Amino acid sequence: MHKKLNEEKVFKDPVHNYVYVQDEIIWNLVNTKEFQRLRRIRQLGTSYLTFHGAEHSRFSHSLGVYEMTRKIISQFERHGYSDWPQEEKLVSLCAALLHDIGHGPFSHSLEQVFETHHEQWTCNIILGDTEVNRVLREAGDDFPDQVAQVIRRKYPKPIVVSLVSSQMDADRMDYLLRDAYYTGVHYGTFDLERILRVLRPYKGRIVVKESGMHAVEHYLMSRYQMYWQIYFHPVTRSSEIILRQIFRRAKQLYEENYSFAYMPAPLKSLLDGTINVPHYLKLDESLVQTAFSEWSEERDGLLADLCSRFLNRKLYKYITIDNPSETLLNEIEQQWVKIGLSPEYHMEIDFPYDQPYDVYRPDAKKGEKEEKTPILLLDNEDRISEISQKSDIVRSITGLHQGEYRLYYPEEPLLAAKSSLTGSIRQLFKL
Amino acid sequence: MHKKLNEEKVFKDPVHNYVYVQDEIIWNLVNTKEFQRLRRIRQLGTSYLTFHGAEHSRFSHSLGVYEMTRKIISQFERHGYSDWPQEEKLVSLCAALLHDIGHGPFSHSLEQVFETHHEQWTCNIILGDTEVNRVLREAGDDFPDQVAQVIRRKYPKPIVVSLVSSQMDADRMDYLLRDAYYTGVHYGTFDLERILRVLRPYKGRIVVKESGMHAVEHYLMSRYQMYWQIYFHPVTRSSEIILRQIFRRAKQLYEENYSFAYMPAPLKSLLDGTINVPHYLKLDESLVQTAFSEWSEERDGLLADLCSRFLNRKLYKYITIDNPSETLLNEIEQQWVKIGLSPEYHMEIDFPYDQPYDVYRPDAKKGEKEEKTPILLLDNEDRISEISQKSDIVRSITGLHQGEYRLYYPEEPLLAAKSSLTGSIRQLFKL
Amino acid sequence: MHKKLNEEKVFKDPVHNYVYVQDEIIWNLVNTKEFQRLRRIRQLGTSYLTFHGAEHSRFSHSLGVYEMTRKIISQFERHGYSDWPQEEKLVSLCAALLHDIGHGPFSHSLEQVFETHHEQWTCNIILGDTEVNRVLREAGDDFPDQVAQVIRRKYPKPIVVSLVSSQMDADRMDYLLRDAYYTGVHYGTFDLERILRVLRPYKGRIVVKESGMHAVEHYLMSRYQMYWQIYFHPVTRSSEIILRQIFRRAKQLYEENYSFAYMPAPLKSLLDGTINVPHYLKLDESLVQTAFSEWSEERDGLLADLCSRFLNRKLYKYITIDNPSETLLNEIEQQWVKIGLSPEYHMEIDFPYDQPYDVYRPDAKKGEKEEKTPILLLDNEDRISEISQKSDIVRSITGLHQGEYRLYYPEEPLLAAKSSLTGSIRQLFKL
Amino acid sequence: MHKKLNEEKVFKDPVHNYVYVQDEIIWNLVNTKEFQRLRRIRQLGTSYLTFHGAEHSRFSHSLGVYEMTRKIISQFERHGYSDWPQEEKLVSLCAALLHDIGHGPFSHSLEQVFETHHEQWTCNIILGDTEVNRVLREAGDDFPDQVAQVIRRKYPKPIVVSLVSSQMDADRMDYLLRDAYYTGVHYGTFDLERILRVLRPYKGRIVVKESGMHAVEHYLMSRYQMYWQIYFHPVTRSSEIILRQIFRRAKQLYEENYSFAYMPAPLKSLLDGTINVPHYLKLDESLVQTAFSEWSEERDGLLADLCSRFLNRKLYKYITIDNPSETLLNEIEQQWVKIGLSPEYHMEIDFPYDQPYDVYRPDAKKGEKEEKTPILLLDNEDRISEISQKSDIVRSITGLHQGEYRLYYPEEPLLAAKSSLTGSIRQLFKL
Repeated sequence: MHKKLNEEKVFKDPVHNYVYVQDEIIWNLVNTKEFQRLRRIRQLGTSYLTFHGAEHSRFSHSLGVYEMTRKIISQFERHGYSDWPQEEKLVSLCAALLHDIGHGPFSHSLEQVFETHHEQWTCNIILGDTEVNRVLREAGDDFPDQVAQVIRRKYPKPIVVSLVSSQMDADRMDYLLRDAYYTGVHYGTFDLERILRVLRPYKGRIVVKESGMHAVEHYLMSRYQMYWQIYFHPVTRSSEIILRQIFRRAKQLYEENYSFAYMPAPLKSLLDGTINVPHYLKLDESLVQTAFSEWSEERDGLLADLCSRFLNRKLYKYITIDNPSETLLNEIEQQWVKIGLSPEYHMEIDFPYDQPYDVYRPDAKKGEKEEKTPILLLDNEDRISEISQKSDIVRSITGLHQGEYRLYYPEEPLLAAKSSLTGSIRQLFKL
Repeated sequence: MHKKLNEEKVFKDPVHNYVYVQDEIIWNLVNTKEFQRLRRIRQLGTSYLTFHGAEHSRFSHSLGVYEMTRKIISQFERHGYSDWPQEEKLVSLCAALLHDIGHGPFSHSLEQVFETHHEQWTCNIILGDTEVNRVLREAGDDFPDQVAQVIRRKYPKPIVVSLVSSQMDADRMDYLLRDAYYTGVHYGTFDLERILRVLRPYKGRIVVKESGMHAVEHYLMSRYQMYWQIYFHPVTRSSEIILRQIFRRAKQLYEENYSFAYMPAPLKSLLDGTINVPHYLKLDESLVQTAFSEWSEERDGLLADLCSRFLNRKLYKYITIDNPSETLLNEIEQQWVKIGLSPEYHMEIDFPYDQPYDVYRPDAKKGEKEEKTPILLLDNEDRISEISQKSDIVRSITGLHQGEYRLYYPEEPLLAAKSSLTGSIRQLFKL
Repeated sequence: MHKKLNEEKVFKDPVHNYVYVQDEIIWNLVNTKEFQRLRRIRQLGTSYLTFHGAEHSRFSHSLGVYEMTRKIISQFERHGYSDWPQEEKLVSLCAALLHDIGHGPFSHSLEQVFETHHEQWTCNIILGDTEVNRVLREAGDDFPDQVAQVIRRKYPKPIVVSLVSSQMDADRMDYLLRDAYYTGVHYGTFDLERILRVLRPYKGRIVVKESGMHAVEHYLMSRYQMYWQIYFHPVTRSSEIILRQIFRRAKQLYEENYSFAYMPAPLKSLLDGTINVPHYLKLDESLVQTAFSEWSEERDGLLADLCSRFLNRKLYKYITIDNPSETLLNEIEQQWVKIGLSPEYHMEIDFPYDQPYDVYRPDAKKGEKEEKTPILLLDNEDRISEISQKSDIVRSITGLHQGEYRLYYPEEPLLAAKSSLTGSIRQLFKL
Repeated sequence: MHKKLNEEKVFKDPVHNYVYVQDEIIWNLVNTKEFQRLRRIRQLGTSYLTFHGAEHSRFSHSLGVYEMTRKIISQFERHGYSDWPQEEKLVSLCAALLHDIGHGPFSHSLEQVFETHHEQWTCNIILGDTEVNRVLREAGDDFPDQVAQVIRRKYPKPIVVSLVSSQMDADRMDYLLRDAYYTGVHYGTFDLERILRVLRPYKGRIVVKESGMHAVEHYLMSRYQMYWQIYFHPVTRSSEIILRQIFRRAKQLYEENYSFAYMPAPLKSLLDGTINVPHYLKLDESLVQTAFSEWSEERDGLLADLCSRFLNRKLYKYITIDNPSETLLNEIEQQWVKIGLSPEYHMEIDFPYDQPYDVYRPDAKKGEKEEKTPILLLDNEDRISEISQKSDIVRSITGLHQGEYRLYYPEEPLLAAKSSLTGSIRQLFKL
């Protein structure tokens, strides 16, 4: 049963000014402990180590995505567009609110090491024995399953999926604005109100009125800048590398039956691959940071060093390499070994372009990184075209890739062992 | 020795746009582990439970206070005001940066229960065996002591103290702007650039050119609004009450030799009063939240309930009481006992006006809450007057106190035991 | 007949972001030549001579008042409040859009000298042989008359009047935000979205939900600051005095049958009191400035000097006088005459408090300056109270009046004739 | 003689917050009547007819360019860069302040018809018998000439010229930010503080530290968007076409000895080509609008219609044409003649790309439109490179040109004579 609140509730939000809640189910979802847990998971992972303002959580972002979705739908309703299936409002709002509920602490790094997937955990939480599930079931026995289908992009009405997951969805629009606000950069601001106004439901998709093309161009340029200035910032990448090293080292030690002085149950089950929903829900950034704090005094010097580095922000440095040939890497590895460094933990090549990224590529094939629905323009004669066909500027930045290889390493041991290194290595690392 | 950096460093900051670092010592202080720890202490304690955007840390604020101080001093230097002792720049900047380094997790609540004082801890960290102390000593053996004197307001040159601690100091100016930015409210914004321009060093104090009076009025009105809208918000007060209850309960259990399933060393030493600097530095909000998470499954039902409430934001409700007479409180207590509630933990009177507060009171006497230097105006004939003598609006809000008693309590058990309560109690609590 | 536009139109607006037009009649009104003329009348009269950014016109403001009214009404409609008479929407929107259409060039000064009233001209334009009238009549023969009744505050449904004309109406809310934006000051910003959300139609009036009291306090404090910082700024007052002197001198010369080298017909009819709607509509700030430019070369030295002063911003200086006694003024006048200055044109006492002003006074009686509907709060039990009864801060600023007498005068002749003046005058004028 | 003001003066500015004046000569220049006249010349010509907020004047912009230049230089001085010639500060500031003083009313349109050049008039005013010239001469007899040389880009030290006139000069940086602020669009905002920080004087030029490349990319993208969204907006182009038609018609009539009912002397001398500095200074937008207002009642129907159109914003409509072949244009002309329209005044092809434009083209040759100094990056090894060699995104937008032919025409007569037109014309003009 779907109930309206007697009185609209609001959250004060720095990005959208207010977030409005009219449905009881939304209010109840926000108040579940699983949703409240998102306050203990940062939205931008380790970016706060580069941009100190970026300390905002997935809680704020999730409310923001909900609010964006609500605004889009209420605009559709206000104009009475017939292509919008009105009965899908509630499932859309719930999916928007919950789409990130499965995120773990420092998700991207954690997922790479442990091969978990936040989307899968989102579904587990929605479908499992949780407060969220109980709230959702009040709207119908199969309602949790419907929400999960939207998350998995399998929902029968693709327009609902595209609200939460496309090249210009509520998720991205919120995070660009929000991350720009909290980092304090100007890059990510675009004309949201204009974009909302030109969105149209059209034959099962969301398209953009062609008159709004310039606003979309501006949005895509903002996105481009945000990726290169914020999300791929080399210092942030360095902290992510440290994080991954910590997780990898802990996993390796665990598999070698190393005895940890501190090993809380949720982490243990993560390491041995038996983690379930209740343990996963305990796994927030507080717990991870507490573990790192304890581990910074572990006997294993490597783990202890990595944890100290992370907590005290003594990150790896990097050099830029045009072409990291095998010969070169072998040479570096040999020198590393010579001075007692681990090629496995003390050097790492990073190439942001290889990473899941988000610059606009409308032509990505199924299974490739950019398979999300492209941005479609609707002209006055009801013809559809993909935006890069019409926009010179979008076409010119599509497929553009800046990118360089970076080699990350700890600087202190290199400085200490400088004299033992070959001249070419010293030159390369500017020692 | 005081060294300039070869190249100015900057931090991107949402409030000041950029924070500029020119001195090596400042750069090194930021990079100490004690300063980095401030990233794990929130600036506004539990306010994020009311204003979800307010997740910023004392790290950001401390950089901000440093930057404000730097701006004030560089304005003094640019104009070559002779009343500004130029040799005090470095000690002022260090004190500004470090003034909050002794803050613990959820400081205000923690300090009330354990009678610690963050100012004392700040001095302990500055003077103890820490990275901060080592960096400071590079500027002279007695430099740490000088910085500590500024923190304690005992520094021989009062103008240095007043930069960091007065009615319109770098600390307050940063936090009003910053807290307004992160909560998303408009109340706390004032014309900082104007205020900086009208500040003058004058006979050992910092005064305001009379022509800037209106900007100061605006600042004081902003402050007034921030106190009542943000800092004293009833929901935030509720979460602080829960926090205090948790700390009190843990302390009580500890004193009763209760055996905790989880009791990390820093918390233990806090509870038994033997805490030292290394343990204090481990005591961040991650550790506290991890403890709460563990304790939410403790055998002691009261502690477990309070911890769950805090983590899952199931806060106490409140009613407003005009005059909480002893008779009334006794009656409530009796009823509480009757339905199995604890008068000690399940009801608490709150009167914000009694709390350390910050509305402008220029006439507070030594030892009273508002003994900070009042705001002084300097007119064209070099006469000094306290601002409320000149400004109608400041006079009219000075001493103004809104304030009402609130009684906080858990709602669920009351609803469950509704029928056992007297009619008058049912009416009072709107059951 | 009331027609919707096929497609919503928008204006990009710096204050409201967008102004939305849905009704054909609004679109047509904007396109009348009488409304377009507002582009040639500045919103803040001579304030641009003090705050150079304040060059915005009444055109922008009028669109803004319309948009505010539209937002308030659409909020009423969205909630389905039964106390809002839905059939009054169109008349409200038209009155909001047109409420300033009768403003002349530099209205306040012009009205004081020529005793015209912009409200009367607004009605004349609405009811006369104008494009505006023709557009309005398409909605019904008596529709122009209805709109005029709203302007005159005689409309049978007072709730419509209070939208456009009360202590917290669409007009004031727009101008505070807009004038703050264009001058660049922070004072005038308040939380508009919050205020819109707490407005309620209630028994023929618009009231404020008590939970929104703090937002209203903030609005009133913003207003207070704007009045003293912007609207009553002494330099702006000086330019208004020059303006009035020009108009007075021109009138005097005209009545003395002086022959002007340049006297366009609309100005002539203003001077001889025969001005009609077509001439009034020609009377924009371009024409007035062109006349001043021509008159700055008139034979009459006084008129020429005043016009040059205005165009070239050589304004009168001022001194502050505690108590302008008759004795003192007589002494000044005598000295003025002695050095060839005119007591009529070269000195003017200004006391802003005497002027039509806007600080909140809920108790003004009929005929007094503040007879607009006071701000009423609606509590949870549907009780109404005037805001200053509930709010400490509003009570404390209500009736507060700063104010000082200023004497304005041209400085150059005084400096030139310095030696001829008495010592006391020299001292008073700091010569 | 160069004198500092006893006390720094400030202007409140919405874009830069404050504009600071420290030199007496700057203060005196602002107070000349020639500079005050800029208040009566709009910065963006007719753009206010499209973006109603854009009513700001060249006065505001000129102060802004001065302030930007002051900020750049004071940053150079603060770092003590040896490549900055300190003795050039005053001439740079004066040139920045005065660079637009020769602008006439609706400059671009006026210049096209009458072949005047505002740069030439700027020099005439600086060197002529003016208040500006008298103020400048106080700093030395040849000082006016030096300032004029900067304006003409002939000053011996090119670094001074590049401050005020290059691809990233104080002029452009101010107008992008200012025009974005007043129109209310987001496009034109970039990170000014960052850009100021990475500018370096280097061997007679101003270059950008390579680490600031991203900020420059953002600036260029903002510029790109502003051009297409604001400066080349089709409605603004339409109003410029009307303006040019008015000027052309008046000139034609004048040459045919038509007798105008209203013809003020400055306009007359403009028409007959004898205009001198005093007349030019009278020629502000007030006068031009007053003339249009009078001419809207002229006997010549064409002039009267065009003037009414301009004042009342009844602009020409446009259609987009892929390729305006001679055949097509001939056909339209014939049809125009048939229904009594003038091919000379009632149709005009516009191709923005043909107009003086500003998209970044580093390779323009002498005499071409973009001969301004390109943007140069300085890397850590003191090597210089042009930005498009390093930046993928700049390279990709360089030379990019969107552009389409538009044919502007009055719609009303076409609608009236619809039945007389051929089918193909009716189809083309959607009648």
